Amino acid sequence: MTLTIEDILSLEKGYRTNLINSVSGFKSANLVGSSDPAGKTNLAIFSSVIHMGAHPPLLGMLFRPVTVARHTYENIKSTGLFTLNHVSSDIFKAAHQTSARYEDGVSEFEEVGLTPWYSGNFAAPYVAESTVKTGLKLVEEIEIKANGTVFMVGEIVEIILPGGIVSPDGYIDVEKAGTVAISGLDSYHRTERLARLTYAKPGKQPSEL
Amino acid sequence: MTLTIEDILSLEKGYRTNLINSVSGFKSANLVGSSDPAGKTNLAIFSSVIHMGAHPPLLGMLFRPVTVARHTYENIKSTGLFTLNHVSSDIFKAAHQTSARYEDGVSEFEEVGLTPWYSGNFAAPYVAESTVKTGLKLVEEIEIKANGTVFMVGEIVEIILPGGIVSPDGYIDVEKAGTVAISGLDSYHRTERLARLTYAKPGKQPSEL
Repeated sequence: MTLTIEDILSLEKGYRTNLINSVSGFKSANLVGSSDPAGKTNLAIFSSVIHMGAHPPLLGMLFRPVTVARHTYENIKSTGLFTLNHVSSDIFKAAHQTSARYEDGVSEFEEVGLTPWYSGNFAAPYVAESTVKTGLKLVEEIEIKANGTVFMVGEIVEIILPGGIVSPDGYIDVEKAGTVAISGLDSYHRTERLARLTYAKPGKQPSEL
Repeated sequence: MTLTIEDILSLEKGYRTNLINSVSGFKSANLVGSSDPAGKTNLAIFSSVIHMGAHPPLLGMLFRPVTVARHTYENIKSTGLFTLNHVSSDIFKAAHQTSARYEDGVSEFEEVGLTPWYSGNFAAPYVAESTVKTGLKLVEEIEIKANGTVFMVGEIVEIILPGGIVSPDGYIDVEKAGTVAISGLDSYHRTERLARLTYAKPGKQPSEL
């Protein structure tokens, strides 16, 4: 079937939201940990984190300022620090629950049953139950004129993970970590590797690593 | 294990690239179709496409101007149009092969054995073999100062997909579409759904849809 822009704009709002949220394919599943200047913690699930570059090591994520992630946004603005914590199949229901609209003053950690953990080098809280933890500092913030969202760029300050899931070439086996993928607003997926493929060169079929 | 920023910066380049490319979790797998003003086609795999908003329907993607995606970037700048085509398990090797550094004038469609297809409403080429196809027009371009990458925002103009993979609530079942997820630079994954979860509300555990 073909949906034109006129079709899409005339869809019922919830239907359109589900459709457009799923049309880009699978997404990353990260819990963003932050705290306010007084140390009060906040935790929110994000599916918009992307890789931006390895040197310097940068990740980016999109904020929708009107959503429940408002406290996360304000905390990052005031402290300059946040953590990304992979969502695994063990904690995906708790991670999803962080998207509920809790009242001011409530910590999602406590409400959903996840444990704040500090590395000693970094003021923002990690999720103890998460297998792959990354600490970042805010380096750039861009407002997207097209819809008023905000794209934040973070530089990686530290990475904490089990050594056994890192391949000899540096690849983190996120499948071995139990990390899940998200599709749409609410669908969680475990994965099964098809293959790692060799670096592509003209005139040569890629083979499996 | 803990890697500090000093550790990360002192890693061998290839190791660091693999590490940082995999630390954000799973990524979307899309083939970006474009053509130059004379109609010569280009195809490139991207793992940086993210959802930006449903109304207006916007997707964003990050370009690294120095990479093989340079032709894609130039085509989008000159025509204002591009397509996103889901990578499925049937075509993931051909999709990966589009990342080879082909010479100027070569179309990746031909080289990797995928078929350009036109909807009739839209000048940019789709991938015939792809299950979920989205046509977009460029609406905003932002240079990221931190590393010179470019974030492009596209507005969805049309979506072409099999009606049977769209749920009654609008969610596109990307697993049923055979869409794969990427991790790192070169790892491709099929998925298995854990659950779709109900909209999160304070004080109520999410249940499975």
